Amino acid sequence: MTDILFEDRLAKLDRILVALWSEILANSRFAAAIRDRRVDKSLYVIYMIETYHYTAHNARNQALVGVRHAENVQYSKFCFEHASEEVGHEKMALHDVMSIGLKEHAFDIPAPLPETEILIAYLYWISLTGNPLQRLGYSYWAENAYQYINPLIEGLRETLELKPSQLTFFIAHSDIDADHFDEIKSIMQRTCKSEADWEDIARVMETSLRLTGAMLEASYEEYERYVSGTSNRYRFLDVLKTPVTSTVVA
Amino acid sequence: MTDILFEDRLAKLDRILVALWSEILANSRFAAAIRDRRVDKSLYVIYMIETYHYTAHNARNQALVGVRHAENVQYSKFCFEHASEEVGHEKMALHDVMSIGLKEHAFDIPAPLPETEILIAYLYWISLTGNPLQRLGYSYWAENAYQYINPLIEGLRETLELKPSQLTFFIAHSDIDADHFDEIKSIMQRTCKSEADWEDIARVMETSLRLTGAMLEASYEEYERYVSGTSNRYRFLDVLKTPVTSTVVA
Amino acid sequence: MTDILFEDRLAKLDRILVALWSEILANSRFAAAIRDRRVDKSLYVIYMIETYHYTAHNARNQALVGVRHAENVQYSKFCFEHASEEVGHEKMALHDVMSIGLKEHAFDIPAPLPETEILIAYLYWISLTGNPLQRLGYSYWAENAYQYINPLIEGLRETLELKPSQLTFFIAHSDIDADHFDEIKSIMQRTCKSEADWEDIARVMETSLRLTGAMLEASYEEYERYVSGTSNRYRFLDVLKTPVTSTVVA
Amino acid sequence: MTDILFEDRLAKLDRILVALWSEILANSRFAAAIRDRRVDKSLYVIYMIETYHYTAHNARNQALVGVRHAENVQYSKFCFEHASEEVGHEKMALHDVMSIGLKEHAFDIPAPLPETEILIAYLYWISLTGNPLQRLGYSYWAENAYQYINPLIEGLRETLELKPSQLTFFIAHSDIDADHFDEIKSIMQRTCKSEADWEDIARVMETSLRLTGAMLEASYEEYERYVSGTSNRYRFLDVLKTPVTSTVVA
Repeated sequence: MTDILFEDRLAKLDRILVALWSEILANSRFAAAIRDRRVDKSLYVIYMIETYHYTAHNARNQALVGVRHAENVQYSKFCFEHASEEVGHEKMALHDVMSIGLKEHAFDIPAPLPETEILIAYLYWISLTGNPLQRLGYSYWAENAYQYINPLIEGLRETLELKPSQLTFFIAHSDIDADHFDEIKSIMQRTCKSEADWEDIARVMETSLRLTGAMLEASYEEYERYVSGTSNRYRFLDVLKTPVTSTVVA
Repeated sequence: MTDILFEDRLAKLDRILVALWSEILANSRFAAAIRDRRVDKSLYVIYMIETYHYTAHNARNQALVGVRHAENVQYSKFCFEHASEEVGHEKMALHDVMSIGLKEHAFDIPAPLPETEILIAYLYWISLTGNPLQRLGYSYWAENAYQYINPLIEGLRETLELKPSQLTFFIAHSDIDADHFDEIKSIMQRTCKSEADWEDIARVMETSLRLTGAMLEASYEEYERYVSGTSNRYRFLDVLKTPVTSTVVA
Repeated sequence: MTDILFEDRLAKLDRILVALWSEILANSRFAAAIRDRRVDKSLYVIYMIETYHYTAHNARNQALVGVRHAENVQYSKFCFEHASEEVGHEKMALHDVMSIGLKEHAFDIPAPLPETEILIAYLYWISLTGNPLQRLGYSYWAENAYQYINPLIEGLRETLELKPSQLTFFIAHSDIDADHFDEIKSIMQRTCKSEADWEDIARVMETSLRLTGAMLEASYEEYERYVSGTSNRYRFLDVLKTPVTSTVVA
Repeated sequence: MTDILFEDRLAKLDRILVALWSEILANSRFAAAIRDRRVDKSLYVIYMIETYHYTAHNARNQALVGVRHAENVQYSKFCFEHASEEVGHEKMALHDVMSIGLKEHAFDIPAPLPETEILIAYLYWISLTGNPLQRLGYSYWAENAYQYINPLIEGLRETLELKPSQLTFFIAHSDIDADHFDEIKSIMQRTCKSEADWEDIARVMETSLRLTGAMLEASYEEYERYVSGTSNRYRFLDVLKTPVTSTVVA
């Protein structure tokens, strides 16, 4: 693929992404709550537990694409290498959850919310069926999301006074994703040939980002249910309310 | 695992391997034919086509172990990295087949022999079920097989006057496998903890080597059927008999 | 499970279903368009093609539950029997599409819409992972949906003047589903024991119905895009507009 | 397929089967030991435990063929129905093992022998890949094996004085397999069209029967190891040696 045509393809994907992120962030109660500083640590925990759940599957479904499409050596190699770099990242998300004040408190990690399950299910589906190249549509936005997500992370960091040791997942990813994004673009240039390849990538990019947006909103709704007391699912987060300063009785 | 105990474990595996290779090579008509120089290029082709078939699955079933056992980060990472290094090696086997004099002759690659299918099936089975560590038993012998196989390759090379460009599969593997073998031992030391782990590794090591030996013999039987004319499966190899020098008719 | 407790469980599921169907139908532009008779045959075709797509996977994911949970003999048997009854139903949906006036017109069946893919992906996910009993939550509403869907089908039938031979999918299903629904309840009574079983069933019931509702809306949006000319995906439906009566030019 | 051509196809399969069973039984130490009445109950137990292991997968891999080939409605329906009839048969094998005198003795069921694992692995492989019709080659001999196996069962029954309640697996299967075999032939007639279909069926028939023969021999070798005391795997069978009648010392 000539450089000019390739840059055109990427520019087209980028235009879709800009519009879609705008739409998602404009309608997001999750984003609005952060902007308006109407959040406490429980929102961060609830969101990071969903992040933990779907992240635990990313290396797996990435590798499955390589298993399925092993006749394309360079793409399959990319899939396995990329998978090897993604393994275990969910443990960073879990670390951040624990470090926020839950380390000493035994609790069972709640199951993923339905919206998170739907995202996970979709990522396996598009990895296991259809055009093997289409999963690049997910990588394309996911490895290039920090410009959109950073303001939210920054908002959470400030409002909740999070330390770097409580943000390892996002710090690690914003570091490595610049390199990853170059690798994604490079493998796209080398493997995506047909009109159908680019259409499939665009469809998976758009659908997986929409499902991620829905997961964000579901996290926020769960947060509201917790705060309002209409759900007991996250009742164990009450320990986060314990005042940090201890009173010495004379 | 302490170094001493670990070395004991490996020594035990090595004793099994030495005995099993002796048994296989002593009873192998494939090996005997090479030793006695009763072979022609068609044996090499028949054998390399089976090699092509099972090799095409090695990266895949290796990666599937990592997909299944992703909670063990270091092992899963090893599986994906190892898979990425194995991708496409079957193309070397195919290259060697073609370079021996088949390049200009269109033919369909024959399907794998039943014994090759059985080996492939078994490798998927032990990758997808049971103790995820057990596939290391396959790697343990396969990445350390050149001391046993080299005399056969050398015999074929001499008798058939094979050039390095017709032996890329074996040359490449004997180069990389020394490193791979160290990696295999290193990951075994870090991940294999229980008695059951070592038993499962030993069982898969022994069973997969026996199945490979059976595949070798099946290749030889197919060669005999071709030479004796009782099977037409490899009739397209007759082109290898064409004298290289052309006769100019006056 | 005692009959009383079991009836309580079902009543609880039914209350969720009544509320959810009300919500879906109240907000559905698909349903509103049918009620207001603002539809033509292309809506029926677009909707039936999505039905075709997800129905083609129902027997498969149903059987996969039995494969995964074969140690529970009565449940596994139910899964395989139920799968055998569902096989090929997508062909009825396709028949209805063709019989509406497309039989003589060659066209490629459009790929499923993203919302349909999401539903399909989710049904495989909940069949292949988690509580094997949870897929009963999907069957519970799907085999008991005709009270909710019939008014829509009836509306389409009247407005579009559909003949029984153009409605085979729905006629066949309303016939068999009464029996199926009794079987679903019977297997639930025999296999669902724990609180978690009923929670998992309720979650899958609710989530799969919501995803089906989203698929309905996506069909409607696609219909609007077709009618307004903003998408060419269904341009081949223009043949349906051809007047049936021929004008004799004098 | 015309009846005459079809009968020819079956006759060809039958000729292969007769020859293969003769070869297997002639060389079988398992069969020889039964003929010579050099067996005790432990052989029956060891063999039935392997039977238990592979039988537990038969309904599963049968159903997977239907999942994979759902576009062929009649064949897929056959696969699911056949799977539903095979579910849970391994429990009969286990029942027979227990009823022989192990019911009161707690023991862990030994893992399958490598030869049994190889058979299981192969049956999944040919169910999940290649020509979906090829698994009929396994059914063809397995549902029609009693003429060959009955003398062995009869020999075991007489020598070990087994009661019908200790032979439920074989009694049940000889009853149902006559019907099953007709169904197998019927579906073959309706679905197998090409030369390749019949070749694939013949190959899977022959290979799966050979692997079953190897499993039989491995059971016998395990029995010899138990009797000679060179393996402790089946040491728990020593309880079967306890004399039934008690001697009262005066």
